[in-house]
Amino acid sequence: MKDTVWLDCENDLLMYIDQTKLPTELKICSCDDVFDLYEIIKRLSIRGAPAIGVGAAIGLFAAANKFEDETEDGFLYSFKKGAEYVNSSRPTAVNLSWAVKRMINCAEQHKGNGVDAIKKALKEEAIAIYNEDIECCKKIGLHGEKLIKDGDGILTHCNAGSLAAVRYGTALAPIYVAHENGKKIRVYADETRPLLQGARLTAYELAESGIDVTLQCDNMVSSLMREGRINAVFVGADRVAANGDTANKIGTSGVAIIAKHYGIPFYVCAPFSTIDFNCESGKDIIIEQRLDSEVTEMHYKTRMTHENVKVYNPAFDVTDNSLITGIITERGVFTGDELIKQK
Amino acid sequence: MKDTVWLDCENDLLMYIDQTKLPTELKICSCDDVFDLYEIIKRLSIRGAPAIGVGAAIGLFAAANKFEDETEDGFLYSFKKGAEYVNSSRPTAVNLSWAVKRMINCAEQHKGNGVDAIKKALKEEAIAIYNEDIECCKKIGLHGEKLIKDGDGILTHCNAGSLAAVRYGTALAPIYVAHENGKKIRVYADETRPLLQGARLTAYELAESGIDVTLQCDNMVSSLMREGRINAVFVGADRVAANGDTANKIGTSGVAIIAKHYGIPFYVCAPFSTIDFNCESGKDIIIEQRLDSEVTEMHYKTRMTHENVKVYNPAFDVTDNSLITGIITERGVFTGDELIKQK
Repeated sequence: MKDTVWLDCENDLLMYIDQTKLPTELKICSCDDVFDLYEIIKRLSIRGAPAIGVGAAIGLFAAANKFEDETEDGFLYSFKKGAEYVNSSRPTAVNLSWAVKRMINCAEQHKGNGVDAIKKALKEEAIAIYNEDIECCKKIGLHGEKLIKDGDGILTHCNAGSLAAVRYGTALAPIYVAHENGKKIRVYADETRPLLQGARLTAYELAESGIDVTLQCDNMVSSLMREGRINAVFVGADRVAANGDTANKIGTSGVAIIAKHYGIPFYVCAPFSTIDFNCESGKDIIIEQRLDSEVTEMHYKTRMTHENVKVYNPAFDVTDNSLITGIITERGVFTGDELIKQK
Repeated sequence: MKDTVWLDCENDLLMYIDQTKLPTELKICSCDDVFDLYEIIKRLSIRGAPAIGVGAAIGLFAAANKFEDETEDGFLYSFKKGAEYVNSSRPTAVNLSWAVKRMINCAEQHKGNGVDAIKKALKEEAIAIYNEDIECCKKIGLHGEKLIKDGDGILTHCNAGSLAAVRYGTALAPIYVAHENGKKIRVYADETRPLLQGARLTAYELAESGIDVTLQCDNMVSSLMREGRINAVFVGADRVAANGDTANKIGTSGVAIIAKHYGIPFYVCAPFSTIDFNCESGKDIIIEQRLDSEVTEMHYKTRMTHENVKVYNPAFDVTDNSLITGIITERGVFTGDELIKQK
């Protein structure tokens, strides 16, 4: 399994798989500039809440490392401005602001030691965030795997796999661990319109790992469940409110409602850092609205509807805690009610 | 509003809009051959349950009119074989077999009057089926319109509009009537993967008629309903079982489950001929499975997933009668329980 984002330690560069090119091309790119970093995250070349956090941390270090400011104040000013700019690239995933905040705090804590020492500390912090992500996803996998039985059919929506984190992923981590443990599982991947992360990324990485994967359109979930093919749903999260309400890729809440109708357990897999205790409930989560053309121009090719048609295209929706069987984190599995006690 | 299928009475030809070309091209074609008719229906150039029925009836007359059989027995043999072949083009919509059966019965009833008289009777029967469809859709519109309030937001899935019938349509008939009556309505059209009938056809015909229409991906229904934008759902039907269970375009049952979750009324609009009293419940309805490439090759262009990925692609799903607020027919609005009494 290849990392999705990593630090080239010798050249101090953020390295990443350009996910807009998958599945037709596995393109590896580098970045050490704040404006590039903003664009990379905005256009989804790096996407998936955990991967965005790690990518932002490494990218901010790589960019800051090139700063030629000689005074600490000048360096810190440039760093914070750059960090805030990158943080504005996408509003919904909490991991981005969480990682940016950690990097800013790190820089401030080392004030007084000189610019070079701050740069060194930022490098170590970025590496720490990277390593913690790998460790965290592994633990999510171990906790979640216990909920999967041999022969199970698992449905997932969007991509919260290895491509959404450094490796393992969140929603797919239990699946990878179950597969490593010899459990035979069938995974059903929603294609996830409009940008097809399920078809392009989830189906790709599972097939590459030799896992039995079936692709379906998002509107086929009820049919699959009615036929008895699905035993559990595993999805990721972009932001979890203190009460367990969960923002994730658009369509997630519909899957949760349908799963509840058929009595199928619905699990959210996320690092603890995805939980935003400042956010009381789903009502407080800002939902990113994206371009009409994502919907009207199928995979950026031709307009496929009348020109007088309006478009509704939110990137995420909020799933009520009442629809979620459990939130699987590196610290264990919690219901919404239990979550608040972990603050 | 242009007809979708009609008879060129002078040249005895089936005329139709090739719906695979919309919305980029409004192509009018003709047909008077059984093999062509099979292909036209199979590849969805004529689609939508009522339009398939009318198209098959007119097409069968146009083809039979060219038969050179001199004996009645020879003519009837050729006609029945051709009719059975056309009937096998798509299995789920009941209107196809209903129209084919009417044409066969008509031919048999006129046996003894000579081949020319049978041909003449078939022409009259095809025209009757065409006229009845227009009348029926108009009545569905009048019954359904009473359920729409000024300012309502209406969600629809797939295309059960004028393009799915001769004109008016089924699910969109109440919307057209409400619009004619000056009610301000907003229509939300599911794009309807994989073949995008919502984006290509529903959004097209509503925009052409000057109705406020918004397009969204199928997985955005829950988000729209959560935001309070939807007051009612109107969909069509390909086959309604005697207990009210309804087969319609894949995704319909998911919309119904989500609507129920949010307490939003869900209506099925269909001509009475769509009700199959021989079919006790949804379990007896055969669901057509379609090609993988419809899902993997976005609108027939490029493969967008890994080659080792399997595909699930049923054309329809079944919505339980318990999820349906009312079935709107030309004879009035019925629940599943009331339906069986109408047999």
